Amino acid sequence: MKELKNNVCKANLDLVRHGLVIFTWGNVSAINREKGFVVIKPSGVSYETIKADDMVVVDLEGNIIEGNLKPSSDTPTHLVLYKAFPEVGGIVHTHSTYATSWAQAGCDIPNIGTTHADYFSHAIPCTRAMTQQEIEGEYEKETGHVIAERFTGLNPVHIPGVLVGNHGPFAWGKDADDAVHNAVVMEQIAKMAYISYGINPNLSMNKDLIKKHFSRKHGANAYYGQ
Amino acid sequence: MKELKNNVCKANLDLVRHGLVIFTWGNVSAINREKGFVVIKPSGVSYETIKADDMVVVDLEGNIIEGNLKPSSDTPTHLVLYKAFPEVGGIVHTHSTYATSWAQAGCDIPNIGTTHADYFSHAIPCTRAMTQQEIEGEYEKETGHVIAERFTGLNPVHIPGVLVGNHGPFAWGKDADDAVHNAVVMEQIAKMAYISYGINPNLSMNKDLIKKHFSRKHGANAYYGQ
Amino acid sequence: MKELKNNVCKANLDLVRHGLVIFTWGNVSAINREKGFVVIKPSGVSYETIKADDMVVVDLEGNIIEGNLKPSSDTPTHLVLYKAFPEVGGIVHTHSTYATSWAQAGCDIPNIGTTHADYFSHAIPCTRAMTQQEIEGEYEKETGHVIAERFTGLNPVHIPGVLVGNHGPFAWGKDADDAVHNAVVMEQIAKMAYISYGINPNLSMNKDLIKKHFSRKHGANAYYGQ
Amino acid sequence: MKELKNNVCKANLDLVRHGLVIFTWGNVSAINREKGFVVIKPSGVSYETIKADDMVVVDLEGNIIEGNLKPSSDTPTHLVLYKAFPEVGGIVHTHSTYATSWAQAGCDIPNIGTTHADYFSHAIPCTRAMTQQEIEGEYEKETGHVIAERFTGLNPVHIPGVLVGNHGPFAWGKDADDAVHNAVVMEQIAKMAYISYGINPNLSMNKDLIKKHFSRKHGANAYYGQ
Repeated sequence: MKELKNNVCKANLDLVRHGLVIFTWGNVSAINREKGFVVIKPSGVSYETIKADDMVVVDLEGNIIEGNLKPSSDTPTHLVLYKAFPEVGGIVHTHSTYATSWAQAGCDIPNIGTTHADYFSHAIPCTRAMTQQEIEGEYEKETGHVIAERFTGLNPVHIPGVLVGNHGPFAWGKDADDAVHNAVVMEQIAKMAYISYGINPNLSMNKDLIKKHFSRKHGANAYYGQ
Repeated sequence: MKELKNNVCKANLDLVRHGLVIFTWGNVSAINREKGFVVIKPSGVSYETIKADDMVVVDLEGNIIEGNLKPSSDTPTHLVLYKAFPEVGGIVHTHSTYATSWAQAGCDIPNIGTTHADYFSHAIPCTRAMTQQEIEGEYEKETGHVIAERFTGLNPVHIPGVLVGNHGPFAWGKDADDAVHNAVVMEQIAKMAYISYGINPNLSMNKDLIKKHFSRKHGANAYYGQ
Repeated sequence: MKELKNNVCKANLDLVRHGLVIFTWGNVSAINREKGFVVIKPSGVSYETIKADDMVVVDLEGNIIEGNLKPSSDTPTHLVLYKAFPEVGGIVHTHSTYATSWAQAGCDIPNIGTTHADYFSHAIPCTRAMTQQEIEGEYEKETGHVIAERFTGLNPVHIPGVLVGNHGPFAWGKDADDAVHNAVVMEQIAKMAYISYGINPNLSMNKDLIKKHFSRKHGANAYYGQ
Repeated sequence: MKELKNNVCKANLDLVRHGLVIFTWGNVSAINREKGFVVIKPSGVSYETIKADDMVVVDLEGNIIEGNLKPSSDTPTHLVLYKAFPEVGGIVHTHSTYATSWAQAGCDIPNIGTTHADYFSHAIPCTRAMTQQEIEGEYEKETGHVIAERFTGLNPVHIPGVLVGNHGPFAWGKDADDAVHNAVVMEQIAKMAYISYGINPNLSMNKDLIKKHFSRKHGANAYYGQ
């Protein structure tokens, strides 16, 4: 659990280093699948003073197992995603500038280039508007359900991130580090898609190229890297 | 008064650190409500050499109580706001890039996302154009009056900032630090709203979601943070 | 002459520090009006190694008075401007991102806010397209003439900068430092005007406000600063 | 070969320093024309730990001559370009933000200013969409062929870069350093062209000015620099 706390703390600080987070606007968690424990950032604590021991350990029902601080208010969203996506080992939530702007616009980020296709097999989906009932009920848990609903028929391993409408991005990966990596990628993809549509609102994509780049890095025949 | 000068000086330097100010384009003040004294940055002094002792102390009529330098030329605006908004303890004025651009555009910043709603319960209002008489009269004082007028029916604690049309943003808070925090938030909100409308000029907002996020951080049932 | 070389060298390095210049894309000069000598950056020399002794001294006809290096290829433009604008003590040329983009767009930067009006009494003018004859003749000198022509009826002290169409900005001031200051201001104004028009293509300006802000900082009744 | 490895390693790190690359999203190579050997970055290795000895040496058919790591997956593209463009000594590939956005938009970057014309005699061309056969065949080699095809009738020395449609930029030069320089220029040109068209979608260019600026820096009558 010590090692997972270190990883999650470092991953939270990496969000700041990569420019994805100001103030306390983000959180990272990771799961130990064997024990069913999730390590997550405490709520509203400054990144400037945060340390591994501040990380909170909860079980999948949200009961605090270890830690003196309240866990992130977004913890119920993380827990729903860990249950819905069994392959996921780490989750990141930020309000990073361009990804959040797409979420506010209520639009999927179309897959229009090989940078996108190197990481995401399809568009990055945006969730539907939440209902009044969902918002006034167990809001953070319902946020998780709306994400899971959006992934009906989609593979969360091939599409390691989502935009929550009018809110911002969640990204995930095999561990906390990988989730941060994908959050950085989403922000860069979101920025370039915004600029590309500014240059050419009628741009066309090349589906064969997308498939090629995704399979160059992922799956049985991947040949990128060492 | 020594402590307030330190806080106001540090808050002024934080504006530079957060990238909201170049040259001398900004000022922070804070009020001691008991004594009725306001501490404010001197006019046109470089941030590179500024120190706590340079801060100027004025009363609510603008009379200099302490200090060898002239107070910020925007002092009369600050004083009007301290009188109009009794809950406010600190005020910031900057020409930060995106907030100023919205002010120049003469548009309110619509509340289109949870980042906005975490801090502002409604749109960030933009003031009306000032009249020739207001501009040629006691201009800085009239600027304060135009802001106060714009807040008729609005709660300055729930909307801790404003855009002065064709000019730039003012933000406030319970003290100087809090006002700087809200100024940073306004700039980030302004940037994301600009990008969101570039992606989708017809985006729609979710009023229940806005209400939820504001109340999650503010008021009797707030549950964000420790 | 030693002091002027130091000032010009420092001003050149300030362009890099303020993010206005990459590689060798800029130059600063200053004039000693009594002697009629101009000190200017050498052509194509890296900012990383440049030192005061590398500065080149020329007279107003462009003859080299001191220095082992060739002066900036833009020297003839600077010399025309020093002759046309007798109040000017320092000149800066850059390819800074937003000001250059306005120049490439062939548009004046409209005076739409108080940040602009604090420094420029009117729009920042863009020069007309140069003729084939001007381009194929003494091109750099003709560039100066086209700028001077654009200022017919305009006051270069109240409008301390220009956009050369399809090229980029020149700024000036009472000395090298002041010219750099105005170049930084132009870049920031150019950026905010771009964003403002993106938000509201039909924005309106307030002429009384512009006049007020300019006169608050300039002229007999200025009251900004110490 | 030692010196070329040092140069290529340094050039790869310069991509990070200039902000053109995050993670492993870029690669630089250089050629020793006498020996017919190309030195290139290894595939998927972090810039934080990379050293000159990690560079891979291949011949023009892609056979590994020296090195314990796999060469960049884009190596076949580099090799095709070295064969097609005999004057080229170094090649850079990045996913830099603005150049990639133009590539995703599928548009040439028009030559609309002197910054562009100082380095590129014409527009920066964008390649056609690749066919399904090209993508599913020897994809990276075909990418090189599509670039070479696009330069039919164009001079790669006068236009030292290209956009691969839906992908991103390649730049080249007389050696690795020069190629990095041109990659930085392309990114800056791409950014300014994007902004310029945002300001004025109907902007016009001045062909005589473009010709002048290109010939001021290049060819027999160049007079820029020392």
